[in-house]
Amino acid sequence: MTEPARVDDDAPIEIPLGDAPDAPRLSITRARRPATATAQVVDHEGLPREVEVPGEHALTVYLDKHEVVTLMTLGQAPEALIMGYLRNQGLVESLTDLKSVHVDWSTGACAVTTHSARAPLERMAKRTVTTGCGQGTMFGDWLDALQPLATDATLAVATLDAALARILALDTIYKRSGSVHGCALLHNTPEAPLLYHVEDVGRHNAVDAITGFMWLDEETGAGKIFYTTGRLTSEMVMKAVQMGVPFLVSRSGLTQMALKLAEDMGVTLICRARVGRHLVYTHPHRITRTPE
Amino acid sequence: MTEPARVDDDAPIEIPLGDAPDAPRLSITRARRPATATAQVVDHEGLPREVEVPGEHALTVYLDKHEVVTLMTLGQAPEALIMGYLRNQGLVESLTDLKSVHVDWSTGACAVTTHSARAPLERMAKRTVTTGCGQGTMFGDWLDALQPLATDATLAVATLDAALARILALDTIYKRSGSVHGCALLHNTPEAPLLYHVEDVGRHNAVDAITGFMWLDEETGAGKIFYTTGRLTSEMVMKAVQMGVPFLVSRSGLTQMALKLAEDMGVTLICRARVGRHLVYTHPHRITRTPE
Repeated sequence: MTEPARVDDDAPIEIPLGDAPDAPRLSITRARRPATATAQVVDHEGLPREVEVPGEHALTVYLDKHEVVTLMTLGQAPEALIMGYLRNQGLVESLTDLKSVHVDWSTGACAVTTHSARAPLERMAKRTVTTGCGQGTMFGDWLDALQPLATDATLAVATLDAALARILALDTIYKRSGSVHGCALLHNTPEAPLLYHVEDVGRHNAVDAITGFMWLDEETGAGKIFYTTGRLTSEMVMKAVQMGVPFLVSRSGLTQMALKLAEDMGVTLICRARVGRHLVYTHPHRITRTPE
Repeated sequence: MTEPARVDDDAPIEIPLGDAPDAPRLSITRARRPATATAQVVDHEGLPREVEVPGEHALTVYLDKHEVVTLMTLGQAPEALIMGYLRNQGLVESLTDLKSVHVDWSTGACAVTTHSARAPLERMAKRTVTTGCGQGTMFGDWLDALQPLATDATLAVATLDAALARILALDTIYKRSGSVHGCALLHNTPEAPLLYHVEDVGRHNAVDAITGFMWLDEETGAGKIFYTTGRLTSEMVMKAVQMGVPFLVSRSGLTQMALKLAEDMGVTLICRARVGRHLVYTHPHRITRTPE
C-alpha cells in the first residue's frame, strides 16, 4: 500500500495478520486528523495574512490498559505510528500478539490490547526509550542489541534520482504549511516505486509510522531505500538497522555519531540529497553509476 | 556571560551560587567536545570531497549516583545542558541544592550530586519526561502545572531585527557543518545584546542548556527574547513559559498546538523570522513599529 485508504471516523476494521485462512485478525481504527488549520498572522509591515499551520495532537498510548507514553503527532497515521513505536521500543514483539489498536481522538487516547496481556513491569523493564532529539535513556543497551546489516545490496545513482524525483512530486503537507518532517520507503528498482510516505511533526514519529506499516504488511528492509527530510542522527541510523534498510537518504545533513554507527552497522548514508546532487558518507562502494 | 570561557579538560572549578560572602559553592567542570570532525565523502559524480560533520556524543546523567537519562549532545555546554535538563524535568528544584556537576567524557558520564540527596523514586515520581519531537510522557501533568505569563512587555520590530542581525553575525558551527540547531537569549533592548548562544544536535538540548545558564546566572525571562533555529512545537512553547520569556522567535515554522498553547499561555510567537521579514502568530499587539 502506498497510503492506506483513510476515513475520518474511529470505527475499527479487521485486518488478517498473514495469509493463512485462519490467520488471527487485528481490530484497528483508521482515525486521521485534519492535516492543517488556517491561522491569522501579522507580517513585518503590520499587515494581516492567512497561512496554513500543521496540526499537532497529544495521543496517549495504553497497552493492555497501562499508560505507556504520550506522543505528539500530526495525526496522519496514528495506528501505524503507535504500532511502530511499540515495536521499536521492544514493548510488543510479535505482530500476531496484537489484538486491537483503537485510536479515539475525542479522548486523545489509543488503546492497544494484546493476546498475551503481559504485566506492564515485565514490558517496561525491557523498554529502551530514546528520542534522538538529544534526550534518551538506555542508549547503550539498545546499541548493544543491534546486529550490523549483512548485505551486498547496491544502489544505482539513476535509481536514487528516480526516488528523489518521486518524493518531490508528492503533494505534501510540507508544501502547504511547512513545519513537518516526511519519511518514505521506496523500492530499490529503476522506477523506485513508493511503498509508504508519512509526514509528522517529529521525524521519529514518521519513522515509527513507516515501521508500523512495514510490520502490518510484513515488509522487510531488504531491497528498499529509506528517505527522510530530517537530519540523520544516531537514532535514525539505529532505526534503519532495526528495519533492515541498507540505504538511508536525507535531504539534510548528519552527525558524527550517525556517521560512525552507519560505518560500523553497514548502512549507506546519503545526505544533502536532491535530484542530481548528493554526498555519500559511508560504504560508497555500494553506489553504482552508468559508465559515460 | 555570553559564552563561558571553556577549557578542554575536565578539572572542576568552584562557582559561588549567589552574592552572599558565605554563598554555597557549586563544583562544576567545563568540559567541551570538539565541535566538528572532517569526513571523506563521495559526491554525485563519484568524486571524493571533504566536509565538516558536527559531533554527537552520548552523555549519561547520574543524579546522586542514580542513572537518570542518556542525552545525545554536540557537547558544547554539557554542564549547562544537564542542569537545564534536570531543572526542566523537575528533578532538582533549587540551585543551592546542587553540590557538583562533573562531566567526564572518557566515560561519557555526568555525575550530579545534591546536598539533599533525595531518594530517586521520590524524584522520578515527579518527573515529566517529554521530548517534543513527537514522543513524550505525562504531557497533561506538565501542562497543568504551567501558569500563563502575566506581562505587559512589548517588542519593537527594530529590536527584533537587531536581534536577528546579531545572531546572523555569529560564527556558528551551523555555518561550518550544518546539521545542528541553535538557540539564543538576548536582551529586549534596542541593541539586543546577546546573553547566551548554544548549538546542539537537538534543539531541546539547546533550550535546556540556555535554561542551565539562566539558572546559574539567576537570570529571568523578563525583558528577554528567545530565538531558535528549530520549529516551534508545543514543548518549545512550554519551555518558554517555564523560562518566563514572552517572545519566542524562530527562523522556521510552528505547529497548531504550539500556536494554541502560546495564545493561552501569553507567549508571542514570531516565525519565519529573518532581518526585515517575519510573521507574528499570537498576541501581535505586543509588537510595536516606529511610525513612518
